[in-house]
Amino acid sequence: MIFSVIRKDKNTNARKGKLVLAHGEVDTPCFMPVGTQGAVKTITPEELKSLGAQIILSNTYHLGLRPGIEIIEKAGGLHAFMHWDGPILTDSGGYQVFSLADLRNISKEGVTFRDHIEGTLHTLTPEKSIRIQQALGADIIMAFDECPPYPSEYDYTCKSLDLTLQWALQSRESHTDGPQILFGIVQGSIFPDLRRKSVEELEGIGFAGYGIGGLSVGEPKSLMFEIAEYTAGLLPSEKPRYLMGTGTPDDLITQIAFGVDMFDCTVPTRYGRNGTVFTPYGKMVVRNARYRDDHRPIDEECGCYACRHYTRAYIRHLFNTGEILGNRLGTLHNLHFYLKLMKGARQAIAEGEYEKFKKEFLNNYSGSEFQ
Amino acid sequence: MIFSVIRKDKNTNARKGKLVLAHGEVDTPCFMPVGTQGAVKTITPEELKSLGAQIILSNTYHLGLRPGIEIIEKAGGLHAFMHWDGPILTDSGGYQVFSLADLRNISKEGVTFRDHIEGTLHTLTPEKSIRIQQALGADIIMAFDECPPYPSEYDYTCKSLDLTLQWALQSRESHTDGPQILFGIVQGSIFPDLRRKSVEELEGIGFAGYGIGGLSVGEPKSLMFEIAEYTAGLLPSEKPRYLMGTGTPDDLITQIAFGVDMFDCTVPTRYGRNGTVFTPYGKMVVRNARYRDDHRPIDEECGCYACRHYTRAYIRHLFNTGEILGNRLGTLHNLHFYLKLMKGARQAIAEGEYEKFKKEFLNNYSGSEFQ
Repeated sequence: MIFSVIRKDKNTNARKGKLVLAHGEVDTPCFMPVGTQGAVKTITPEELKSLGAQIILSNTYHLGLRPGIEIIEKAGGLHAFMHWDGPILTDSGGYQVFSLADLRNISKEGVTFRDHIEGTLHTLTPEKSIRIQQALGADIIMAFDECPPYPSEYDYTCKSLDLTLQWALQSRESHTDGPQILFGIVQGSIFPDLRRKSVEELEGIGFAGYGIGGLSVGEPKSLMFEIAEYTAGLLPSEKPRYLMGTGTPDDLITQIAFGVDMFDCTVPTRYGRNGTVFTPYGKMVVRNARYRDDHRPIDEECGCYACRHYTRAYIRHLFNTGEILGNRLGTLHNLHFYLKLMKGARQAIAEGEYEKFKKEFLNNYSGSEFQ
Repeated sequence: MIFSVIRKDKNTNARKGKLVLAHGEVDTPCFMPVGTQGAVKTITPEELKSLGAQIILSNTYHLGLRPGIEIIEKAGGLHAFMHWDGPILTDSGGYQVFSLADLRNISKEGVTFRDHIEGTLHTLTPEKSIRIQQALGADIIMAFDECPPYPSEYDYTCKSLDLTLQWALQSRESHTDGPQILFGIVQGSIFPDLRRKSVEELEGIGFAGYGIGGLSVGEPKSLMFEIAEYTAGLLPSEKPRYLMGTGTPDDLITQIAFGVDMFDCTVPTRYGRNGTVFTPYGKMVVRNARYRDDHRPIDEECGCYACRHYTRAYIRHLFNTGEILGNRLGTLHNLHFYLKLMKGARQAIAEGEYEKFKKEFLNNYSGSEFQ
């Protein structure tokens, strides 16, 4: 059993579960810190572990360009290369090809594109994406997909979905069964019938888990929640559900109630690195001048390394003077916040109190800046 | 006793000693990592300690501009502000005023200048520098001085030295005796008679230790060594001698033989942060493409965190992709290298073998790039 649901919440669709992967176990719902280029920006694997991270995400597209797959293969795979011995999930490259590269041509076979760094021409196909991900050696790999932008016309989304389903089948066929497991990706933009079609056809092919893709690409938040809830509800309950690339703390807490098990997002690392930190009361732009003479920690209640030892005034000073230690402290604080939040959510589900937990969190948390 | 010489080398002027300061003991010869703006760039105080750093340096000029002294006073001093509980030495601001600021006017009273950030007008006097350094709360503070550029005319250097000696007296008179100790700074550019005059007059005033300033400012290395050796030889043997702002590993090993006890330099942190690392065989530009497929550590013999867990290929990848973890690993490696080198030097002196140690190091070490 790769995935087991340990406890289902009474009043919501939230569930607590466990993934048993090649490089270790992961308690769900989980948040996966993003290590796009084979490093979670600014921090070490040891720090990730001490923060409670059980799984991280990395990117086929970026690693394929730099340093190149053959280098990582020679290093003994991504785990050895980056000195992280826990579970890794790699994205297929589909999302990045469509969001970062200059597209040249999409065909049934795959995508030809110019990369965003050197402008060199590349081809990525489902077979190639799977082969690369197998070479990287991640615990969970993703099917190759097209992620339509928002908004997309119904007709375009239909055609795109057919291609993605064809690529899902080819991805599945290219995948060698082994300790590495393959997830399919549900697309269909904001169209419920296409989301349903996507889920049904992917289930027909059969995957170890399912990603919900194509959300958090510019649509209103209410629409994102609607589609995420609808799609999560269609997915088989015995398989892990991974909502891709989203989001803020309130997004996570809301969407755990839909039955989502896995999240990844660059928000905590990117925000933290740039001087915006999360608290139970909302986000705080600690790099702002208003904190220059504020000698309290970011959050009095927080037990992270940054809050135990440093003040807002000091952290603001680090950002103000371009000191990299500031980027580190912001990142550590935010990842601590996210991972502790997930732990709290799991505990609330285990105690049958997720609805209360969610309500309390969302009542305290303000989307605007906390001072 | 603030300083005691524990062992003198037979064949050179090297000596092993101990400084007993308000925040702890320091074994000499020592290297002080530079934390210009109240942080040793990219790393934490805990990391500094694990590297074996016993004392760090910070800067009056930079901290006075950002965040401003009153903020640090309210934080409870520099130790509390930056979360470093070991010894700190602060520079007086003299060197920075002359090297970074737009000068407006030098008078007997002090210097009026425009800072290099906002261009605001400031005045720094010996009294003010000492007052600021006392507010910062460093263990060792420095007299306010003028550091003449290289080359400087004899006449200019004479006048400058007279001013520096006047300021040294005023610095001494402004200093309140207490746990914080004050060092004088020897100037005199490359002129032996002026160096001698400087030492004699400073000794007349009487300081807890002596900085050798005005070197490593562009003069040829042989001249730097000549003046450093000459000046160190003039200084009282029972007081610590601090060669300011220099240098590379071979500089340190050479100048320990002159009887220098303390060093600081931005070289290990700045080089490391920018992808150049030190090895016993010379420096290595690990960010270069030639290391992209090199799966060995920076230095097989090195026990630092970077060398225990990462390859040249990975570290090169981090620099190539702008990942901050690369800046951290380069910094950690270089500080480890410097601090271990100082430990080796102390041990060699204790064993009466410094000349052999120095010879072996310099024979292995090449100033050019090691591959």
